[in-house]
Amino acid sequence: MRISELAAETDVPVATIKYYLREKLLPEGERTSATQAVYGPAHVERLRLIRALADSGVGIAASRRVITALDDPPANPSHLLGMAHTAVSPPVDAALDLTAAAALISRWGWQPESCDPQQVAGVARALGTLDRAGFTVPETTMDAYLAGIRRMVEAEIDAIPTTSSDAAVRYVVLGTVLVEPLLLALRRVAEELVSGERFGDAGS
Amino acid sequence: MRISELAAETDVPVATIKYYLREKLLPEGERTSATQAVYGPAHVERLRLIRALADSGVGIAASRRVITALDDPPANPSHLLGMAHTAVSPPVDAALDLTAAAALISRWGWQPESCDPQQVAGVARALGTLDRAGFTVPETTMDAYLAGIRRMVEAEIDAIPTTSSDAAVRYVVLGTVLVEPLLLALRRVAEELVSGERFGDAGS
Repeated sequence: MRISELAAETDVPVATIKYYLREKLLPEGERTSATQAVYGPAHVERLRLIRALADSGVGIAASRRVITALDDPPANPSHLLGMAHTAVSPPVDAALDLTAAAALISRWGWQPESCDPQQVAGVARALGTLDRAGFTVPETTMDAYLAGIRRMVEAEIDAIPTTSSDAAVRYVVLGTVLVEPLLLALRRVAEELVSGERFGDAGS
Repeated sequence: MRISELAAETDVPVATIKYYLREKLLPEGERTSATQAVYGPAHVERLRLIRALADSGVGIAASRRVITALDDPPANPSHLLGMAHTAVSPPVDAALDLTAAAALISRWGWQPESCDPQQVAGVARALGTLDRAGFTVPETTMDAYLAGIRRMVEAEIDAIPTTSSDAAVRYVVLGTVLVEPLLLALRRVAEELVSGERFGDAGS
């Protein structure tokens, strides 16, 4: 199909498609003349992925890294998760104090040193923000966070498809990034409903 | 203290403080002359809050709504949660199909109609993004998400301070918004560690 048909099929404007082509998020179509190229189903699928990443707040540079990880995946699913995380996480700030984050991770019974410093730094940044706002998560709530997240993640990892490496790559890379807004949205719904139950005022 | 001292105390540049004053995020100081005003501990605390909201990716307009909710809170903690959520959630798009989101919420045993449509819409948007990317969350994983989130939220709501309404307001409004990056960061760490356990390659 031509670029105009690709735009109609995916509901992405031609100008935006050209931008993604320039940014190398979308591979070139097959040239049919100096000014024309044709696109196939792989372009449709890739465009949907780019839009989904954008919808999830993933920027252009991080999207390019996610797509690179999809196109050229490492063999081990454990490395794959690391690549997906690295792609969408900011670089480590050397000045960041990781002590509190490492202590929190230890409560899971894991060695913080076993973990990618970029992800420990993510926890440290989040704790720093809470700290600067003068907000303390009560111990019992933090315990529930650690237990709840562990339970969710074990189910995620157990469900990694083992039938094809393509499916595994897609599942890990997209599941990591695109599921985040769903979890936050479900938390807000649950907060309203549980608080309605506790304070006898559901639904207002 | 003067604005320069406030800047030194909070590590926020004077120009940024003036911007927050213009945007009404920060209340005016007490005027001592036509060109001078003095600021107190409440300004320091408010500035830390504004920075924490910005660090969490909350924009100026949403921050103003959060601060309004803090300054003029409703009496019922259940309403308060609603106000905090409304402040930081985008408006409902009437064209959004809420069917799948409502079905998901029903799996908790709650009536989706009891829930703020803005929050149901948040779930619908997140599901739509996954759908457009061609990503399906496996049923067992979704069950684990629902169970894990419910457990975390019950602990959150049980820990709402009842000693003072100020403390309750602060806890609910900030806990809702500022804890989100912590949960996502902890999930990424857990994903790497559980995947390392399962695939025998922790720490790489």
